[in-house]
Amino acid sequence: MTKQVQVGVIGLGGRGLGMLKSAILPNPAIKVVAVCDKYDDRCEVATGTVEMLQGYRPFQTQHYEDIIAMPEVEAIIILTSWADHINIAIAAMEQGKYVACEVGGAYSVQECWNLVEAYERTKTPIMMLENCCYTRDEMMLLNMVKQGVFGEVVHCSGGYMHDLRYEISHGVENRHYRLQNYIHRNCDNYPTHQLGPIAKVLDINKGNRMVSLVSMASKAAGLHEYVTNVKQDNQLAKVDFKQGDIVTTIIKCAGGETITLTLDTTLPRYYSRNYSIRGTKGTYNEENRSIFLHNHHMHLESKWPEQWGNVEQFREEYEHPVWQQYLQEGVREGHDGADWLVVKAFIDSVKNKTQTPIDVYDMASWMVVTALSEDSIALGSIPVAIPDFTNGKWINEKNEWK
Amino acid sequence: MTKQVQVGVIGLGGRGLGMLKSAILPNPAIKVVAVCDKYDDRCEVATGTVEMLQGYRPFQTQHYEDIIAMPEVEAIIILTSWADHINIAIAAMEQGKYVACEVGGAYSVQECWNLVEAYERTKTPIMMLENCCYTRDEMMLLNMVKQGVFGEVVHCSGGYMHDLRYEISHGVENRHYRLQNYIHRNCDNYPTHQLGPIAKVLDINKGNRMVSLVSMASKAAGLHEYVTNVKQDNQLAKVDFKQGDIVTTIIKCAGGETITLTLDTTLPRYYSRNYSIRGTKGTYNEENRSIFLHNHHMHLESKWPEQWGNVEQFREEYEHPVWQQYLQEGVREGHDGADWLVVKAFIDSVKNKTQTPIDVYDMASWMVVTALSEDSIALGSIPVAIPDFTNGKWINEKNEWK
Repeated sequence: MTKQVQVGVIGLGGRGLGMLKSAILPNPAIKVVAVCDKYDDRCEVATGTVEMLQGYRPFQTQHYEDIIAMPEVEAIIILTSWADHINIAIAAMEQGKYVACEVGGAYSVQECWNLVEAYERTKTPIMMLENCCYTRDEMMLLNMVKQGVFGEVVHCSGGYMHDLRYEISHGVENRHYRLQNYIHRNCDNYPTHQLGPIAKVLDINKGNRMVSLVSMASKAAGLHEYVTNVKQDNQLAKVDFKQGDIVTTIIKCAGGETITLTLDTTLPRYYSRNYSIRGTKGTYNEENRSIFLHNHHMHLESKWPEQWGNVEQFREEYEHPVWQQYLQEGVREGHDGADWLVVKAFIDSVKNKTQTPIDVYDMASWMVVTALSEDSIALGSIPVAIPDFTNGKWINEKNEWK
Repeated sequence: MTKQVQVGVIGLGGRGLGMLKSAILPNPAIKVVAVCDKYDDRCEVATGTVEMLQGYRPFQTQHYEDIIAMPEVEAIIILTSWADHINIAIAAMEQGKYVACEVGGAYSVQECWNLVEAYERTKTPIMMLENCCYTRDEMMLLNMVKQGVFGEVVHCSGGYMHDLRYEISHGVENRHYRLQNYIHRNCDNYPTHQLGPIAKVLDINKGNRMVSLVSMASKAAGLHEYVTNVKQDNQLAKVDFKQGDIVTTIIKCAGGETITLTLDTTLPRYYSRNYSIRGTKGTYNEENRSIFLHNHHMHLESKWPEQWGNVEQFREEYEHPVWQQYLQEGVREGHDGADWLVVKAFIDSVKNKTQTPIDVYDMASWMVVTALSEDSIALGSIPVAIPDFTNGKWINEKNEWK
């Protein structure tokens, strides 16, 4: 067996523990030598989990600085609340530790610059663990884009459309920071799940970049209705939630493409990321799982077109090589197998001492959408500039993601 | 038989002739006494059609002023190019003729004010013939909204998503004005098809109003690819089309609701108006023809949820009364029967000397979205104010559309 990567895991709430169980501990290339959470009971559970699955007890602390300072730790995986991602990441980079960081949005433009500057100062790679860049459909679609199936891509849509009313409104009981975000902020607080795959399709930071955005929020009515009539929570029923139910953001790219993003988490609905790809030769639409190609599907105008639900017809020809291999090896649990792949991609980079496939410029430019959407909404939906975190390097970079 | 309404029809291109045949001449309450088009050959065809179907030859002219001046004409139906709608409408109103006008967008804010002021000066009702306010699904959904099935509605989406590459690129051959619009303008040039039904759902101008919008356009690539590789039109291949392929507009309403509109007419796709209604108790999505209700469909997160395609399950309980009756009488041809209903609603108003169900304020506020989206795009997607064409009367108006 090759030498394992010594990893410290910071943040052990629901997501942290889930990742530990499904994608970190089962990976034979990883040894979890330390775990951290600000709540001691979570640390205990995590340590017990490591012991049960691997037969040893990792170092356990409530202070992430302790883990970052451990010489034997080669990489840090951050699975904390959104507000702690960047601070911990910068601290880890300063110690030369490869960093993987769960997804989330930024609270300011400045913290994204701080992240980028920490990378440029330390040359320590950091990867946002955007698992939706590794899901089966997204990878097949990327493959199709790169092969020109959709022609010239001019527009993509995406969103995080997930009814989180239960999770948000139980933020006190489950100690989850989402509740406070929905009480105090009004923005696209979770843009990266579909922006990540779209950015890879549109060569963002690698030959293209996002130049500006506008955001608009609807009123906030969903949570109040839920906490009043479903949860019947007298305390939350008095709260004036600032977060609009539907936040729509439109992004303009240097190449002339547009991206629409939607945050949609406080109304009843089925789960979707509303992914669409619009090109001069074809279109994909997640909402009915259809691929419509100029040469194959013209002149179909019925109310339930025959191509709806036809995505599987493209699987044999366009399955992404990464997934072809993964399917042979056996797909793991954790968001349809994507958690496994994103963690594996990170660990491969650590082992090989290479740049991570999602880099600091991706992370900064995807996260900043949250802070900028907050600004745009606060100022009456004015367009706001998206910083060029590469300071011009995007022009000559090539998109190696394929 | 009751006395017929004496009607003059202006504009006899493809749409005009189609409406004449499917929804105007077959209506026993209408007598077409005059027809007009600036092209004489179109007049000839229309006159021949009237003679064939009704046994008489109407007055025929290439000058709309001739028809408007005819004392026996009680109502004018305008089916011309977009740019002529408002001028002809105002001229007809000045002569006290009820006006029906096909859908289209405005070229300036001022022409919308001119329309409103003509109405207020003359008290002559005018109705935009927005047939999508009369389609079967839209009316059922309106019925469901009014009965509270979706709870408090916070967001709607809609669009005109219709692959028009053939029609646009044959604008010389078929003498259609769309081509020139796509060469010279960049805006949501056709917003009303879904904005109309949405406005009725959200009580626009009747207790609510649209306050501001932002628009962003993608690059224009679809038509160039089409005229170069499919039509192989050497002249058009040299044209720099200004109209972006995808135009996204977000509208904020006084009640806090948001509306997203999409123009999507120059890329390969299936037809859709992308209608969605998002409320605190449920959601409708045209893209998979599904209705998702809090009490019925929670905890369904599969990739092809069981409620997709379930719209027909709501038909028996929520079919709109207008459609219940229409189905008994027999649905006519012309956009799934909607053309018949919208013309009938207009003629009923003329006969009864009542206000039209879609009025001048609706028409002005729906059409102005085109001009304002053009402004917003030209200025880098800044938010632009939507005029209150009612000058405050919306606050105390009741939405009688139900």
